Amino acid sequence: MSDGGLKPKAVVLLSGGLDSTTCLALAIEQGFSTYTLAFDYGQRHDRELEMAAWQAQAQGSLEHIVVSLDMRKIGRSALTADIEVPKHEEQGIPATYVPARNAVFLSLGLAWAEVLRAPNLFIGVNQVDFSGYPDCRKDFIEAFERMANLATRMGTEGERVRIHTPLLELDKAEIVRSASRLGVDLAQTHTCYDPSPEGLSCGTCPSCRLRLKGFEEAQVQDPIPYESNPL
Amino acid sequence: MSDGGLKPKAVVLLSGGLDSTTCLALAIEQGFSTYTLAFDYGQRHDRELEMAAWQAQAQGSLEHIVVSLDMRKIGRSALTADIEVPKHEEQGIPATYVPARNAVFLSLGLAWAEVLRAPNLFIGVNQVDFSGYPDCRKDFIEAFERMANLATRMGTEGERVRIHTPLLELDKAEIVRSASRLGVDLAQTHTCYDPSPEGLSCGTCPSCRLRLKGFEEAQVQDPIPYESNPL
Repeated sequence: MSDGGLKPKAVVLLSGGLDSTTCLALAIEQGFSTYTLAFDYGQRHDRELEMAAWQAQAQGSLEHIVVSLDMRKIGRSALTADIEVPKHEEQGIPATYVPARNAVFLSLGLAWAEVLRAPNLFIGVNQVDFSGYPDCRKDFIEAFERMANLATRMGTEGERVRIHTPLLELDKAEIVRSASRLGVDLAQTHTCYDPSPEGLSCGTCPSCRLRLKGFEEAQVQDPIPYESNPL
Repeated sequence: MSDGGLKPKAVVLLSGGLDSTTCLALAIEQGFSTYTLAFDYGQRHDRELEMAAWQAQAQGSLEHIVVSLDMRKIGRSALTADIEVPKHEEQGIPATYVPARNAVFLSLGLAWAEVLRAPNLFIGVNQVDFSGYPDCRKDFIEAFERMANLATRMGTEGERVRIHTPLLELDKAEIVRSASRLGVDLAQTHTCYDPSPEGLSCGTCPSCRLRLKGFEEAQVQDPIPYESNPL
């Protein structure tokens, strides 16, 4: 018998990567019935979205939706407009670059949360590995939460909207350990920025390196295959 | 000779309706060089988007983009999920209903503002005619502005992101008078929720009624044709 009706509802942003997949497992562990939301914003590879759908089903998300969002016109301005390209993207703006991304993704999550009347919203940000990103920091999350309560009917009608960030203070090794403890199948996650045409992770991009280092520190075997593994 | 380079940059959310069109004219009057942003989120009629593009060009927006955003999956949940449909939408959720809409639209505007390094963002909300909408109120706008400064590089690197709401305290008649004073061509705006197949405004939907009442109170002739005019 399902007890889904008795549990508080939460919307979980789920990209199909290691962090958001672990975030989903932590939301479920905390007793929420979960609704998962992925974004199709012109990623170069479908593998992330496939992994998101796989994890949603495997972990028991009550509903999984993919919202299409064409950010190319916004992004293209960066290449044509008279602005300095940020230093951390010296190798060119990746196809996955989304300015103000967590504000955009959380707002769309908030829209769905409002429809579902689910005042809990989970996002797998962490400020340990991404301390340079303003929208991965606690003060951004707190400001978003405050805004969310004023932006919605549920917030202004007495339900408190909460943004949950269970990974906020975890490093990658702690995330890997949390996922292992909860039995998450990390073979079904995707992290690589630049996979081969067959979908094999490169092992050398910044995202792969961070992942591999996390598994190594956690002393857990990364179950996904790599083209090369520098560690 | 263009002096666009010397003016501060602003992103203006432009739907092609009376309010956002007037908001654009006010941003230009205040001395900003403007970049306009419209959303294609499955409106039933293209006329709004046509009017937005027309106004952008007529008023001298430096760049006009349309971001596609498929909210149907989020909205459809409202019709299938176990929630109470809000009372103000007793006639069914219109195709244009977007929950948490101003948070979503402002976040996407913020993304483009970040790319353009344009720390000014204009939105044509007003809390006089829409006092029941939480995301048309001043406290929401202030909370969004605070969040925006923490969400972006420009905000955290010392530029202050500002959300401008020049219509916030105006009623519809005052908006019509502002537009007239600034020479805005209000024949090229679209307001109706339910136009005829030829694009003629119905004159009877809540949106048409509010517009017609505003023109009447302002003692300005509404230049658009109506199927019927109850006033």
